Amino acid sequence: MATLKQVAAHAEVSVQTVSNALNAPHRLRADTLERVNRSIELLNYRPNRNARSLRTSAVELIGYCVPNWPHQTHLVMDQFLHALCAAAERTGRHILLFTAPPGVDGMPTYDDLHARRMVDGFVLSQTETHDPRHGWLKDEGIPFVSFGRVWKESTQPGPWVDVDGATGSAIAVRHLYDTGRRRIAFLGWPKSSGLAEDRVAGWRTACKELGLPTNGMAVRCREDSIEEGALATARLLDSGRDLDGIVALSDVLALGALRELTARGIVPGRDVGVVGYDDSPLAEVVSPGLTSLRQPMDRIAEELITILTGDQQPAERLLLPELVIRGSSAPG
Amino acid sequence: MATLKQVAAHAEVSVQTVSNALNAPHRLRADTLERVNRSIELLNYRPNRNARSLRTSAVELIGYCVPNWPHQTHLVMDQFLHALCAAAERTGRHILLFTAPPGVDGMPTYDDLHARRMVDGFVLSQTETHDPRHGWLKDEGIPFVSFGRVWKESTQPGPWVDVDGATGSAIAVRHLYDTGRRRIAFLGWPKSSGLAEDRVAGWRTACKELGLPTNGMAVRCREDSIEEGALATARLLDSGRDLDGIVALSDVLALGALRELTARGIVPGRDVGVVGYDDSPLAEVVSPGLTSLRQPMDRIAEELITILTGDQQPAERLLLPELVIRGSSAPG
Repeated sequence: MATLKQVAAHAEVSVQTVSNALNAPHRLRADTLERVNRSIELLNYRPNRNARSLRTSAVELIGYCVPNWPHQTHLVMDQFLHALCAAAERTGRHILLFTAPPGVDGMPTYDDLHARRMVDGFVLSQTETHDPRHGWLKDEGIPFVSFGRVWKESTQPGPWVDVDGATGSAIAVRHLYDTGRRRIAFLGWPKSSGLAEDRVAGWRTACKELGLPTNGMAVRCREDSIEEGALATARLLDSGRDLDGIVALSDVLALGALRELTARGIVPGRDVGVVGYDDSPLAEVVSPGLTSLRQPMDRIAEELITILTGDQQPAERLLLPELVIRGSSAPG
Repeated sequence: MATLKQVAAHAEVSVQTVSNALNAPHRLRADTLERVNRSIELLNYRPNRNARSLRTSAVELIGYCVPNWPHQTHLVMDQFLHALCAAAERTGRHILLFTAPPGVDGMPTYDDLHARRMVDGFVLSQTETHDPRHGWLKDEGIPFVSFGRVWKESTQPGPWVDVDGATGSAIAVRHLYDTGRRRIAFLGWPKSSGLAEDRVAGWRTACKELGLPTNGMAVRCREDSIEEGALATARLLDSGRDLDGIVALSDVLALGALRELTARGIVPGRDVGVVGYDDSPLAEVVSPGLTSLRQPMDRIAEELITILTGDQQPAERLLLPELVIRGSSAPG
């Protein structure tokens, strides 16, 4: 029986091209595909289905691209990866890590991994505004699921799992309300972030429902740093607004709030309740401990894997964050 | 020709057991192995070598266990994983992520992944005192390389790459000395940590060489938290020691030092120079920015992959950390 190599020699193409003709014909030019198919027929080549299914069944891998964005911190990435691996393993699969350039430049890497049958599909995360990956993978018919929505797209291509930031902020506001706070500020990021807009909207709605003031109570920080969180808190305090609660868009900003409050002799937890986002390792290393909205990593991972390994119906799962209560929001 | 399944049925064992008999016979009891081998012979079963080598050459994977230790933060894990993937990809390989219980309970997972040919070998990290993995893998003949030494072992089994913590501390001390500091304290962890001992020893040696005082200048923190770093700094300041420099064993402890100094009206960078360890995302989000000793992740990853994919000579690579200078150690 003819081998892949003989077919390649006959068609005057590379072995990879023959493999593509068999596994990813859409990646070849029409004339190349025709030439390869003619050689396959003439040489009576039969792909070794047994070998392939052996491989496929022995190595069921899901691709995950390790992000490398210098200006973004991934304080809970180890939690996410552990949950994702564990969920994949419960279905007999594993996670294959890879690197790729950001944006559309990375797509050949995704395509290649899939065409070479190294992975069955992909889990995307760190989605960005106008993220090109979703539409591209959908068009190519490559299975994927996204942790996070592509913000600013009216309808997102493909299935996704995300955490409901608006409701998260509302949970934080209500918790501060229940512990006696009535003037609750919000520390956010610039308007351009869809995630930030979602969270600030939840804060505003919850405050209005509870009859709490919102005017001048939301500050946009220029970046996600302790310094910016402290500056924003200082601005709020200097403006004469008599705060007793702060919801911050990140644990890093919340740490800035804690620092500024403490520097002014205001005791976090007793005088002002503070809540952060993500329940990162930072939340536990400060004193008082920082109350924070935790992303339910185990459930997120479970849903991602279930969707990806299931029948690929359009699936959208919006999960609730969990409030982890610590000293920074002790009853006031 | 007989299939694996027919052999399994004939020998009254699972397919996995037949696979083990072929790929990892040492894992079977002698009588089981004999029974399986008899069935293989009687049924004239031939493992499909072609299929296997196809798989092996198509999927060259290196296993890496995602740690899940609740009380340890992995603030630079994303940097490490990205560097490791990129280094593996330069050799045409990828990283397979998996989870395993800590300690010796995790060894069957490593064994199974290797026996099933899902990975060619392993990169270990987060090594612990008395870590059982190294000796176990070495005894099994499974290729591996360790990022980090097994502390308290006189000779560590197998190859490793590590960062020279003692020299790192010496670099920090010399930097503070060069910027005019003469009374340099050290914030460390409890004695039980080999890594901590290494770093404090480097601080002590460097101070002595420069004629700087060390008596009462090293404080052991009970845990790696901002609070403990602040308390240790307070203790040093209250004891009347006229500090002008602090080397902290971690960025988290260094953040505590920054907090306590600021709270007392002492300006970090101007009045007291502070240096942390690991150049985590924390170092950039505080103000002033924290000078910190960065682990050279790209080189670490490169060495790990070179050793693992090379000829497995005994290899030991001790790399130097790089001092990233920021405002916290501006010339005093």
